[in-house]
Amino acid sequence: MGQRIRIGIAGYGNLGRGVEAAIAQNPDTAVAGVFTRRDPASVRTLGAQVHRLDAIDACADAIDVLVLCGGSKSDLPEQGPALAARFNTVDSFDTHARIPEYFDAVDRAARANDRTAVIAVGWDPGLFSLARTYGESVLADGATYTFWGRGVSQGHSDAIRRVPGVRAGVQYTVPVPQAIERVRSGGRPALSTREKHTRECYVVLEEGADAAAVERAIVTMPDYFADYDTTVRFVDAETLRREHSAMPHGGFVLRTGKTGHDTTQVLEFALRLQSNPEFTASVLVAYARAAFRLAQRRDFGAHTVFDIAPALLSPKSPAELRAQLL
Amino acid sequence: MGQRIRIGIAGYGNLGRGVEAAIAQNPDTAVAGVFTRRDPASVRTLGAQVHRLDAIDACADAIDVLVLCGGSKSDLPEQGPALAARFNTVDSFDTHARIPEYFDAVDRAARANDRTAVIAVGWDPGLFSLARTYGESVLADGATYTFWGRGVSQGHSDAIRRVPGVRAGVQYTVPVPQAIERVRSGGRPALSTREKHTRECYVVLEEGADAAAVERAIVTMPDYFADYDTTVRFVDAETLRREHSAMPHGGFVLRTGKTGHDTTQVLEFALRLQSNPEFTASVLVAYARAAFRLAQRRDFGAHTVFDIAPALLSPKSPAELRAQLL
Repeated sequence: MGQRIRIGIAGYGNLGRGVEAAIAQNPDTAVAGVFTRRDPASVRTLGAQVHRLDAIDACADAIDVLVLCGGSKSDLPEQGPALAARFNTVDSFDTHARIPEYFDAVDRAARANDRTAVIAVGWDPGLFSLARTYGESVLADGATYTFWGRGVSQGHSDAIRRVPGVRAGVQYTVPVPQAIERVRSGGRPALSTREKHTRECYVVLEEGADAAAVERAIVTMPDYFADYDTTVRFVDAETLRREHSAMPHGGFVLRTGKTGHDTTQVLEFALRLQSNPEFTASVLVAYARAAFRLAQRRDFGAHTVFDIAPALLSPKSPAELRAQLL
Repeated sequence: MGQRIRIGIAGYGNLGRGVEAAIAQNPDTAVAGVFTRRDPASVRTLGAQVHRLDAIDACADAIDVLVLCGGSKSDLPEQGPALAARFNTVDSFDTHARIPEYFDAVDRAARANDRTAVIAVGWDPGLFSLARTYGESVLADGATYTFWGRGVSQGHSDAIRRVPGVRAGVQYTVPVPQAIERVRSGGRPALSTREKHTRECYVVLEEGADAAAVERAIVTMPDYFADYDTTVRFVDAETLRREHSAMPHGGFVLRTGKTGHDTTQVLEFALRLQSNPEFTASVLVAYARAAFRLAQRRDFGAHTVFDIAPALLSPKSPAELRAQLL
């Protein structure tokens, strides 16, 4: 093995911590430091040195790839293009509707400065996107289904917490088993939003809040809950902390199709994750390896998981992969 | 859409027929002809013109990619390198142990003549190899399991038919559900050969054959059956034809691993195929599209599924993929 790939971590929440842990599992990588907008003295890492994000340029020579661990809503739209002009980057931008414009902005910045960026890495977007593309490409006549869960949705949990009378809350997205079975058995059903997923909410009320009113406000909330069968359970703060602070997630991508004369073929990709951020972080580190290799071969600009050959993710050489995993 | 990709089919058994059917499902591809070692007049296709394989060079200008549909045992070791010197090729070479030497032979031939070859395409090797590589790359600390079936194994069916007293036979490889469940639930069990799969044989006896002797010969056969729990059922020829002439197959690739502080993460890729050759053919056609694009960008030599970015398989452009599937 040659030099280790030196990975910087920009942002140190659950995702950044997960990246630091994943680097420790990959012997061909090393942490080049954590970069934060907080006071560095206030950040406790697993061992990485902490620096101010606004002083990151001073460390440029020590960073091969920078993993951006900020949020998609306000951090990445600004940080992504700005940092891709100065570093090779990998990020988990996940606002599906805004991916094309984000890609273009990062691509321009990276290309103009001979940098390589990989955007929208993780499991959805990410590995699930790959499953959809492989499935659609090898079964031209078919239908693709994505089911999420059982897992915690941050967006829906945030929506609960904005309801007056709610002190805290966690929302689980739950796939409907019967819907999955219909697809798995080779059918191509038209499934409504309500038929695919249910939503489970665990809510801690403010003192004196009206439980019935809170429940009604949640289950009728447009966009988030109105189109689903939603259950609301009221729990105390201690129960919420004890039973609902993990961040499990996962889901299923299915492609069901026909070949030849009415022959049914079904592909399924499934994830069962005890920790969504730790898994996303592990995927980011594999793609940081790919970004490093792409930059070495001067393949600059923005990339997505679709543009990256699987061999680039592995610490093994192509010859080792052929001998061991083909 | 530009010109259609003109795909030649070398060999016309179940796989070649499947390739012709798959081309019909992909509007950006067209059949450039079937090439056979048999008398062309004796080959009935779904519509493709049939030519003698030994006269294929006369058609070279009409073929963008040639899909090799011969067998891995005797056809491909010779045809693969020979045809990769004159055509861009895709094949389903599946003798795992001989892949490295086959890759080298095809690579030399293709590289010396500015041709692109993709070898060992299908589902195993192929999509299952991809699942193993993605799984291992994103979960560095883990274990990978491959289960096959329930499906017909040609190699084991052939082995049955070589037993004295056997007139015909079909063998199903069957994964052990309890073993899959142990892995799926996040365990990392050490599983013996016997614990992973069972084998089911359906056998038609020759007249006057000794059923007990045949059964004993099968279940004790080294390499093929001795290490498995094998059941042998005797059926008449009509039952075998009616109930066991389909070629279903499939299986499961699981990667179970740990991240962070003892967090369990599980990936699963599963296939349920009503027709193994038709599905393999569909995968071959998607990789023929990739081979065509690689040749256009002068990326010559041998490739495997590991070397090919997923976007190259899709008829959609990278921008369409980002907008629709990411």
